[in-house]
Amino acid sequence: MSLTSRSVVTVDDLSNEEIAAVFSLADEFAQDVRAWNHVCRGIVIASLFYEPSTRTRLSFEAAVHRLGGDAVTSVDISASSLSKGETLADTARIIGSYVDLIVIRHPWEGAARVFADYAGVPVINAGDGGHEHPTQTLCDLYTLRKERGGIAGLKIAICGDLKHGRTVHSLAYALARFDAQILLYPAPGLGLPDYASSKMTTEYRGIFQPVNGEDLPGISRALGPDWVLDAIYVTPSKPNQPALFPGAQLNLNVVLSSWGQFSVDALYMTRLQKERLAPDDVGGKRYLVVDKDLMRGKEFKRTLVMHPLPRVDELSRELDTDPRSMYFRQAANGVPVRMALLALVAGRRGAGLALASPEPEAREAYCSNLGLRCNNDRCVTAHETSLASRFLVVGHDPVRLRCVFCEHEDAPALVGSAASRLARPASKAAVRRIKAENRVYFMSAEQAEQRQFRLHGAD
Amino acid sequence: MSLTSRSVVTVDDLSNEEIAAVFSLADEFAQDVRAWNHVCRGIVIASLFYEPSTRTRLSFEAAVHRLGGDAVTSVDISASSLSKGETLADTARIIGSYVDLIVIRHPWEGAARVFADYAGVPVINAGDGGHEHPTQTLCDLYTLRKERGGIAGLKIAICGDLKHGRTVHSLAYALARFDAQILLYPAPGLGLPDYASSKMTTEYRGIFQPVNGEDLPGISRALGPDWVLDAIYVTPSKPNQPALFPGAQLNLNVVLSSWGQFSVDALYMTRLQKERLAPDDVGGKRYLVVDKDLMRGKEFKRTLVMHPLPRVDELSRELDTDPRSMYFRQAANGVPVRMALLALVAGRRGAGLALASPEPEAREAYCSNLGLRCNNDRCVTAHETSLASRFLVVGHDPVRLRCVFCEHEDAPALVGSAASRLARPASKAAVRRIKAENRVYFMSAEQAEQRQFRLHGAD
Amino acid sequence: MSLTSRSVVTVDDLSNEEIAAVFSLADEFAQDVRAWNHVCRGIVIASLFYEPSTRTRLSFEAAVHRLGGDAVTSVDISASSLSKGETLADTARIIGSYVDLIVIRHPWEGAARVFADYAGVPVINAGDGGHEHPTQTLCDLYTLRKERGGIAGLKIAICGDLKHGRTVHSLAYALARFDAQILLYPAPGLGLPDYASSKMTTEYRGIFQPVNGEDLPGISRALGPDWVLDAIYVTPSKPNQPALFPGAQLNLNVVLSSWGQFSVDALYMTRLQKERLAPDDVGGKRYLVVDKDLMRGKEFKRTLVMHPLPRVDELSRELDTDPRSMYFRQAANGVPVRMALLALVAGRRGAGLALASPEPEAREAYCSNLGLRCNNDRCVTAHETSLASRFLVVGHDPVRLRCVFCEHEDAPALVGSAASRLARPASKAAVRRIKAENRVYFMSAEQAEQRQFRLHGAD
Repeated sequence: MSLTSRSVVTVDDLSNEEIAAVFSLADEFAQDVRAWNHVCRGIVIASLFYEPSTRTRLSFEAAVHRLGGDAVTSVDISASSLSKGETLADTARIIGSYVDLIVIRHPWEGAARVFADYAGVPVINAGDGGHEHPTQTLCDLYTLRKERGGIAGLKIAICGDLKHGRTVHSLAYALARFDAQILLYPAPGLGLPDYASSKMTTEYRGIFQPVNGEDLPGISRALGPDWVLDAIYVTPSKPNQPALFPGAQLNLNVVLSSWGQFSVDALYMTRLQKERLAPDDVGGKRYLVVDKDLMRGKEFKRTLVMHPLPRVDELSRELDTDPRSMYFRQAANGVPVRMALLALVAGRRGAGLALASPEPEAREAYCSNLGLRCNNDRCVTAHETSLASRFLVVGHDPVRLRCVFCEHEDAPALVGSAASRLARPASKAAVRRIKAENRVYFMSAEQAEQRQFRLHGAD
Repeated sequence: MSLTSRSVVTVDDLSNEEIAAVFSLADEFAQDVRAWNHVCRGIVIASLFYEPSTRTRLSFEAAVHRLGGDAVTSVDISASSLSKGETLADTARIIGSYVDLIVIRHPWEGAARVFADYAGVPVINAGDGGHEHPTQTLCDLYTLRKERGGIAGLKIAICGDLKHGRTVHSLAYALARFDAQILLYPAPGLGLPDYASSKMTTEYRGIFQPVNGEDLPGISRALGPDWVLDAIYVTPSKPNQPALFPGAQLNLNVVLSSWGQFSVDALYMTRLQKERLAPDDVGGKRYLVVDKDLMRGKEFKRTLVMHPLPRVDELSRELDTDPRSMYFRQAANGVPVRMALLALVAGRRGAGLALASPEPEAREAYCSNLGLRCNNDRCVTAHETSLASRFLVVGHDPVRLRCVFCEHEDAPALVGSAASRLARPASKAAVRRIKAENRVYFMSAEQAEQRQFRLHGAD
Repeated sequence: MSLTSRSVVTVDDLSNEEIAAVFSLADEFAQDVRAWNHVCRGIVIASLFYEPSTRTRLSFEAAVHRLGGDAVTSVDISASSLSKGETLADTARIIGSYVDLIVIRHPWEGAARVFADYAGVPVINAGDGGHEHPTQTLCDLYTLRKERGGIAGLKIAICGDLKHGRTVHSLAYALARFDAQILLYPAPGLGLPDYASSKMTTEYRGIFQPVNGEDLPGISRALGPDWVLDAIYVTPSKPNQPALFPGAQLNLNVVLSSWGQFSVDALYMTRLQKERLAPDDVGGKRYLVVDKDLMRGKEFKRTLVMHPLPRVDELSRELDTDPRSMYFRQAANGVPVRMALLALVAGRRGAGLALASPEPEAREAYCSNLGLRCNNDRCVTAHETSLASRFLVVGHDPVRLRCVFCEHEDAPALVGSAASRLARPASKAAVRRIKAENRVYFMSAEQAEQRQFRLHGAD
């Protein structure tokens, strides 16, 4: 199966083979980005940005122009149709009837999936809230692969705000798929959210090795004692590599220098997303700064410095001319990588390739309008109430449901039968007793009663 | 005469033959919209949106790109030149010197006419306030013609907000010109405005058959008793078809099922334009909803459901997959129809066609800076006071003046002579007594006195 | 040296020969602007407008499309990356890695220079605050040259707001370079700012002839007694032409009619920039109006009327159809002139030309982070504190420093040595005593003490 006409909402919509095809086409395009303006002639894309993002938008639009295609752009959508009350599904259907491909950024998590469901043309997610930003991830992977010759076996430390940075989630999943080792080093209180760690352990069969020990000696000034080493993520293909660090509250230098015999390949620093920070978050106050001083350590001798940009203060300008600094190259790689993805999805390249596609979803789906809705208040279903809830059942004991749109996971407390209108605790046995098509999950007894379900045992 | 270099401000700027030429070119383009990107190579249009409209703007811009042309876009105009106090005429002249064609949307009624007067290049109106939106109308007509094989003789019910929907006015005029029969079915208080009905009876010699009777039995739940059947509009070419319905307060189903021997061809539903609604309008509270239930009636068996979109609640999502639903197809047809219009106006198609153009305006013009100005406070002349008033005299007894810009009509109370500075009631005789070049009309005695005219009989 | 890959931040970045090359290519393009859409095929520019400007932006974008290139546009930048705290340098580097050329407008003076320093691709300044707007100047010069056959020896009166109009500063410098004579005729309080007059006398060795005399008789109603004739600027190539007018408070007609034996060639009127006016400025209240009445004078018989537009009330609409009115033609000339500049800078034309480039800067540079920063609060260095100060030493006794970014000049009071940490009054002798690499300038004793410098003679 080829990539033609496929939507890319998460990195998981692409198989490893397909990603490799994107990268090798990007290599070809990158030799001279100006030499390809015949490839997408006649192709028109819509670039819909419900949230401003000069960088990502211009990178996509430059890419389509480099290929000889055209773009129609809207950055003012919230001021127009939306204010007239139009649903995303309607917008997707209409704009999809104008153009060949849609690139969308939206503040609601899962919005790109809704577009992909209704547009009738392929949709590329350019960031949906805190959920995913797959092309940023592709640029990151492409940069690593280009600089290091491959991704498997690399050791990548990901630092900073791992809670709000969608970039980081996509990257962590993707690195895992390509058999890299990841060190998560969040600022206090800004660790990976539950649904993301859950996805890493279930989907990618990774092992989190929580670190609980005491402070090691020799902590450098660069990292205060408040920085928490969250976990070492060991990829499945290297099961013999143990989690190395028993101590919490570790200093990054110490951790990294003890991390196997080689130094860390890349230090991926993220911006503190102040605009998404709750007022009581402390992570903002004690945030790692990557500067000349830190990078002087011999454990960082060959370490690439990466950052999705924009940076604020967490990445010193002193490093801009350092040969290890990759962040501007990451941005520059955005054009050939996006060119490659656009050309493949638009069917102007690779139509004859026989690539393995992602495996079809094997998990049970759950879909009912009677019971719970996704509990994530930034989920697209929280904003568009006419959108039917859809979940995958990703755990059975206890039951865990993952929203198909935003991938947030919930553990419902009760399960009921739409036939008997009777609800009971959602044990594995209770669930089995109800036919799949009748199953209705609830977050709480109150919710079940609101929907006119009786509680088992109550009268 | 060909369409090359002609402005399209209202549908009336095109003759029936010219509209037919647009449609047959649209048919050609629609076969494969990607096959024409040589047609307008080298053409650059300006897409100027003083009011946000993602849908219309992207449709125009996609169309010009599909033809191989380019667009420069401004959706931020109010924030720039305008705030520096520039007139529309100046903007038109300047932008017109940059590009080959201008597409404009503006909140002031008549703004597109001002642009057409000054730009020096053809101007296409993409909506000017509540006045006209001719390309929307062309898409509607094109959809009807494509689905039904022609327009003459079709029976079209137009429902909802007929007061503010510019779409509806253009559509009603155009359907009349193509000999369709129209049933106007407004929400209470949201009937066709006076200038529009006046234009229908004067310009198109249509006959309104006002309905005044009592409630008919068998009213279904879909339409409450508050819905008023405003009028049946009978086109001039079918003078032998009587107005059928004597009763007011009719139920739509009942009305339609009795409307001749065939069922209605299309039900054109409009959105309630809440943003244009006065606070005391009641129409918003009792608004028709087109849903599965309504459409179940056998009188709607072959009825196309049309809507200019965006919809809010007046058109149920249940109908989205119904084969009678045309609304997404209307939107999709926007691209080939606009491609055709752009290619013709830009002179890249149809330059050799010998088409009948609209008949030159036969009516007397009235233009004086001494007397009344257009009384419509959304008229472009109300916002740009340096713009000279211009009217057509569309009635003589009493005198009726139609603003050339917004087509709003006023009946001046007084007529005076610029020579004698004497004003008197604007009877037909009084008007005749004054030389045309000296005539000055006033709305009131106060206005005449303010302008230093004496009132006849006063001393 | 050719123009390829060179940035154009001020008109001075182009030699007279290079400007002539731009103009002769513009002549070629202007013959049929639609005939060149092969010239820049494959070129993608970024059009970054941090401040709205429909006119300038659309002119640039139309130009690149006329050449067959493409543009990615951002007018919403302040709402996106900037709000995340990104520096101009970072934005320049990133966008520069996407495209072949950047066009930028920014409210901070010197912002375009920062972009040019970091982008890695050529940058064209489309206006940076009150500093420069070189392509506007090129359009003005091109119009004069086209209408009068050349620029040398022309007599140009520049009227109105000479304080805030960046257009005027660029124009004055450029006219001087091309040996025109300039009459500055500002509204009261709105004369040329110091740094601009200083630049004219130092850089271009012009002579300002201040006018101080008494009122002449025969002042016409068009110009009240409050209008001040600021200066006659005599270009160096015509040293034998004396400053003609001894009287201040002159009437423009009188001044002009006595200005040599020929009438003035062009009257360049500028808009009152109300948005930049301090509340106590009186110039806004007594502003020259150029209308039919004024232009009736025989001294204006052959005088071209020019204006950068938009106009407000200072230029009467009565003149729009007057053959002397050039303002719409100035705007229209923007497209071929910008086409020519883009084609040359992008290397698609003129790559083989051997043109004299501007002479390399001969003046001493001063750069220290210890002492004063540019004192202009609209300078880019006032907004981006991480940007290192950079100055040229443009005077020695007293010392005058010109900011490399905004070209604002300051006269530091003290000079110190970074070695001895001792500061003293910045006399020529004191400066010489300190090695160039150790020199640190201060605006005041307070500033020196704040930076831990001792004052000589103090203890």
